[in-house]
Amino acid sequence: MPGNSFGQLFKITTFGESHGPSLGAVVDGCPAGLELTEADLQEALDRRKPGQNRYTTARREADQVKILSGVFEGVTTGTSIGLLIENTDQRSQDYSDIKDTFRPGHADYTYQHKYGVRDYRGGGRSSARETAMRVAAGAIADKLLRQQGIQVQAALTQMGDVVASNIDWQQVRENELFCGDANAVEAMQELIRQLKKEGDSIGAKIRVQATGVPPGWGEPVFDRLDADLAKALMSINAVKAVSVGDGFEVVSQRGSEHRDEMTPDGFLSNHAGGVLGGISSGQPIFADIALKPTSSIAISGRTIDRWGNEQAIVTKGRHDPCVGIRAVPIVEAMTSLVLADHWLRQRAHNLTAQTETPDISR
Amino acid sequence: MPGNSFGQLFKITTFGESHGPSLGAVVDGCPAGLELTEADLQEALDRRKPGQNRYTTARREADQVKILSGVFEGVTTGTSIGLLIENTDQRSQDYSDIKDTFRPGHADYTYQHKYGVRDYRGGGRSSARETAMRVAAGAIADKLLRQQGIQVQAALTQMGDVVASNIDWQQVRENELFCGDANAVEAMQELIRQLKKEGDSIGAKIRVQATGVPPGWGEPVFDRLDADLAKALMSINAVKAVSVGDGFEVVSQRGSEHRDEMTPDGFLSNHAGGVLGGISSGQPIFADIALKPTSSIAISGRTIDRWGNEQAIVTKGRHDPCVGIRAVPIVEAMTSLVLADHWLRQRAHNLTAQTETPDISR
Amino acid sequence: MPGNSFGQLFKITTFGESHGPSLGAVVDGCPAGLELTEADLQEALDRRKPGQNRYTTARREADQVKILSGVFEGVTTGTSIGLLIENTDQRSQDYSDIKDTFRPGHADYTYQHKYGVRDYRGGGRSSARETAMRVAAGAIADKLLRQQGIQVQAALTQMGDVVASNIDWQQVRENELFCGDANAVEAMQELIRQLKKEGDSIGAKIRVQATGVPPGWGEPVFDRLDADLAKALMSINAVKAVSVGDGFEVVSQRGSEHRDEMTPDGFLSNHAGGVLGGISSGQPIFADIALKPTSSIAISGRTIDRWGNEQAIVTKGRHDPCVGIRAVPIVEAMTSLVLADHWLRQRAHNLTAQTETPDISR
Amino acid sequence: MPGNSFGQLFKITTFGESHGPSLGAVVDGCPAGLELTEADLQEALDRRKPGQNRYTTARREADQVKILSGVFEGVTTGTSIGLLIENTDQRSQDYSDIKDTFRPGHADYTYQHKYGVRDYRGGGRSSARETAMRVAAGAIADKLLRQQGIQVQAALTQMGDVVASNIDWQQVRENELFCGDANAVEAMQELIRQLKKEGDSIGAKIRVQATGVPPGWGEPVFDRLDADLAKALMSINAVKAVSVGDGFEVVSQRGSEHRDEMTPDGFLSNHAGGVLGGISSGQPIFADIALKPTSSIAISGRTIDRWGNEQAIVTKGRHDPCVGIRAVPIVEAMTSLVLADHWLRQRAHNLTAQTETPDISR
Repeated sequence: MPGNSFGQLFKITTFGESHGPSLGAVVDGCPAGLELTEADLQEALDRRKPGQNRYTTARREADQVKILSGVFEGVTTGTSIGLLIENTDQRSQDYSDIKDTFRPGHADYTYQHKYGVRDYRGGGRSSARETAMRVAAGAIADKLLRQQGIQVQAALTQMGDVVASNIDWQQVRENELFCGDANAVEAMQELIRQLKKEGDSIGAKIRVQATGVPPGWGEPVFDRLDADLAKALMSINAVKAVSVGDGFEVVSQRGSEHRDEMTPDGFLSNHAGGVLGGISSGQPIFADIALKPTSSIAISGRTIDRWGNEQAIVTKGRHDPCVGIRAVPIVEAMTSLVLADHWLRQRAHNLTAQTETPDISR
Repeated sequence: MPGNSFGQLFKITTFGESHGPSLGAVVDGCPAGLELTEADLQEALDRRKPGQNRYTTARREADQVKILSGVFEGVTTGTSIGLLIENTDQRSQDYSDIKDTFRPGHADYTYQHKYGVRDYRGGGRSSARETAMRVAAGAIADKLLRQQGIQVQAALTQMGDVVASNIDWQQVRENELFCGDANAVEAMQELIRQLKKEGDSIGAKIRVQATGVPPGWGEPVFDRLDADLAKALMSINAVKAVSVGDGFEVVSQRGSEHRDEMTPDGFLSNHAGGVLGGISSGQPIFADIALKPTSSIAISGRTIDRWGNEQAIVTKGRHDPCVGIRAVPIVEAMTSLVLADHWLRQRAHNLTAQTETPDISR
Repeated sequence: MPGNSFGQLFKITTFGESHGPSLGAVVDGCPAGLELTEADLQEALDRRKPGQNRYTTARREADQVKILSGVFEGVTTGTSIGLLIENTDQRSQDYSDIKDTFRPGHADYTYQHKYGVRDYRGGGRSSARETAMRVAAGAIADKLLRQQGIQVQAALTQMGDVVASNIDWQQVRENELFCGDANAVEAMQELIRQLKKEGDSIGAKIRVQATGVPPGWGEPVFDRLDADLAKALMSINAVKAVSVGDGFEVVSQRGSEHRDEMTPDGFLSNHAGGVLGGISSGQPIFADIALKPTSSIAISGRTIDRWGNEQAIVTKGRHDPCVGIRAVPIVEAMTSLVLADHWLRQRAHNLTAQTETPDISR
Repeated sequence: MPGNSFGQLFKITTFGESHGPSLGAVVDGCPAGLELTEADLQEALDRRKPGQNRYTTARREADQVKILSGVFEGVTTGTSIGLLIENTDQRSQDYSDIKDTFRPGHADYTYQHKYGVRDYRGGGRSSARETAMRVAAGAIADKLLRQQGIQVQAALTQMGDVVASNIDWQQVRENELFCGDANAVEAMQELIRQLKKEGDSIGAKIRVQATGVPPGWGEPVFDRLDADLAKALMSINAVKAVSVGDGFEVVSQRGSEHRDEMTPDGFLSNHAGGVLGGISSGQPIFADIALKPTSSIAISGRTIDRWGNEQAIVTKGRHDPCVGIRAVPIVEAMTSLVLADHWLRQRAHNLTAQTETPDISR
């Protein structure tokens, strides 16, 4: 199957290029009866929007999302929901010199190989601009989940060597870097200023967590909740690693240390990150993601053109020195999409409305 | 959709419990005309087989795989391939005391919540025994890939704090721990002996790589090659983290350092791990995986039973002190399944048999 | 995707050739908690079994089905259910002369074109033998549906020019032709005797109906209940036509005649066949199917061989003069599979457990 | 999975209500390199457009389709293609009196049951207005097929009791009823005039055929070419029956009559309709479809309202007396979508580019 759809029961299909007339998505499978307005989606989009502060790209995108179907008199009808954002601030002239030259670290070379043709303007379909529709669709999933008492939130936890020592979620919400450690924020801002001067960029780390997910979500053996989450997060531009729970630290752990012991009053720890055997345990689910530094930098790089000739390239245009910042709402969106999907899947198959098993997470 | 299938065009569907009569799989989508015998599959299974050395579980499983359909006179016919392994060495009595008690770190608690009922014998469907069918099916995928000049291989790169300093693939093949560093092997063996005495277990790290994959495989924006790989690997029992290329190290990297510059003679580095924008670049693809220490240990742990009462449990039975060892062939199998699937997907959509784009990876 | 799976949430995947070692299926998505034994499946298989009377093929197949997974202590566990039937009565020598010659009306020619290789013994995968697994899987779906008060049943309504004037379901169950009109049965038996003498075969028509389906099943706009039913029934060997409700008779009907008027006490007619806009209306669902005469007949026919040479062929072996008879349980099975699938799909999406809309079908 | 997608490799996902702001579709999986303009799609849409003659509804829809992505400099890029049509001529006031009353023969009652809420304006999502996007997407599929030498065309073959005695494809193209028999056209026009006077409607029959399809397309055992075609056609509004080849006539046929004998110079007949065992044989593929008379008529009918009260209803608004006329391009579109999908599927799996099997259809 072609690759522009995600999800089985709560399913999104997206389209749109960075510099095409518009971006769009179809959200199929959203249950009827959910109150939904364009404002619900806009709020999420505004968090992701570039140009909102001086630490992200200066490109201004109105990113006004329209709901074209599936909602009637403010309520979802159960039919497919069409979403559209018109591209308004496109400076195509910025990209004319990369028409035939492959930017290193970008998908130019691989798209050209795969398709034999590509929309080179701003990276076309490979641009992170595509993720705007994920955020819009994710906002619908998020609203469904909130009604179930589930809260999904992400934070920037590291930028370069600057590590956030804790996550104060209040800080995250107020902070333009989505970072939960006020001290780290200052150091990160300083780092960005330095990078802008140097024309360079930096990687980042994001933590996402979901609280309130009841036990029983996830479909072994392949569609485990953590496996679908890994795919969802790895599908975000620039992501190079995904870990759940203690992640790579488990390599050095002993079984007696890692296994989360249980008591009638709850789990004694959460090394697993809320998933056991691919199924939610009722504990908070958490995952960490690594994002590479953006490859669009002002420092000249060696590359080739379409005919195989050696070239040097300096990426012009307006680019984030750290794509990890704007990725925070995208990470939340993809996590919400996975959870909404598994919520519906669990609804389909769970005949016994209430199992008698004690839920120690409550 | 239910979760026991993986892949879109090269698709496997598996069934079977640890202590049921047998395990099985259907491989659907394998092209006609491939020479295939049970011996091809058996060779892969034998690598995964427990009881083959003193560092893995003493349980003996013949793991004799039978091909029940889809192959005629030694050649695949294009119809679905049925595979079956009968379970022969099941000591169900070992598990009678966990019938109503949830083993910490296992899927007992979550399966009970999800389904309201579970086959408790040896973990039932949640047992790693299930992965035998992945290995059998993966061997078919692997044979297809080898015909394309693609080689998939994995190695144990870390156990606890013992790190393999390099990967000598010849060593990996000869080594019963699938480790490519002879010095590390000795330290790992010593660690296992120590853990067996203590009744404890340890985590592990695996590196998998695929060489020979041409540029152009992967289906943006959601079914990226690395996203599907992340799902495939995270769906393996005990895996808690997946990274591609430099993985979490990219957090501290600069764009000028990470982006892999290109010259007419090839890429100057491979920080990306062979995937750009979700599409293979022609460079070697590599990924790292973290596996948690097995939760089945001889050290008593706190837990609850089905009725919520406090219990203590010591897991009896025969278990690997480090599940990471036997996971190596499983990691190879899942990687091969992802690649075979994307090979067929790329065949479907790639109208222009040869693009004129220079392939600098050759 | 490869074609050996059917269903989205209640999904079956089958394998097996007519003269291979065995046939098998994986039923994935069956909810946990259903009481299920091999006897439940065997009963359905025995109805389809050849050799049970003198009007169908003399080939004897034990068709003993085994449940290999997914059921524990007599109850489904929610994991995938493996099913297996070993082929026991295969006379492969019967088919040696069609190794290189294409039987007219069969799939020999098209399989050879598609795959370049084929298991010629008894038609291999294209044999109706494959439908045994549909019947076994359908029996699981049927059991689920019966618990919801839904009854699926089919009957032979025409053979050649012999038309059943009514359907007495008691007759259908007692009758070896699955025909609900005792008078027609006699004429059909006479027709079959005549055809056996002549070495010829005849087509048939089957009616299937489902009662007790509540309003609201079906997923517009493509996965309509009737569209999925059409696919399911058309996928059965030899089926050439599927109609719902009044079928082709609607061509001559007027709107004032066709539309089923409603009153508080119920619908005044059921021209629609229980489906409106692709969604069940609560009325009985009914469909008609046409099956072609079997192409395996004792009358010589013109054909070609693999090298394009002209050949004449007389199909030997044991064959039904009217495949429509044995198709009756298969039609029931496919109908049950479609309904079980849509029951689960409706469960996933229907947030409001009870709509306030009056159900005039009750 | 939700029901607004069709196809596996050439996949469309649609959205939009009759009286919402717009209709849209995403076409995913179209290979790169196809020349495509909005004019290609518009031509197909114009054939379906209402208001083009006095025999269909007087509603005027500009139906101007826009391509929003996936095409760059006149050529498809392999990325998802977004399509949009804005709804311009909506007289919502026409429908205010059916807000709470279910029109008999329509999906009002079933949508209300399924979703608990519905966009009642013009039938909302259940309106045939939805099929505009099928036609637009089908035009892309059609263009791909034409490059392979495949031609898909449909014709109105019966309206009420007026039967077209033959299909002159030149006539079909010139004719506003898409009917291939000039004499029948006159009688049909007379019938429509009569029906308009009476305020009634009539059913219709359509024949679709595809020539040039090579042998080997179709994926047994469930995704047979004819099974997927049956689903595609049955998913069109008002369709109640689908038959392939001789259809229901096979019930009375003998095997010696039905089986299409073969010679080195070709098949001697085409009772099968170009499909054997679910795979194309290289002969012309043909199918017949029955469409019910539209339920929106000016004759008062009995029904109920949302609260179960008895009501009488006269459907106002602008409606076709025979929906079968406008369905002709829709039937072509769905047939093209099925074929394009199976073309890609066959490409994926067919390793041996040319089988040595003689193709007697050429």
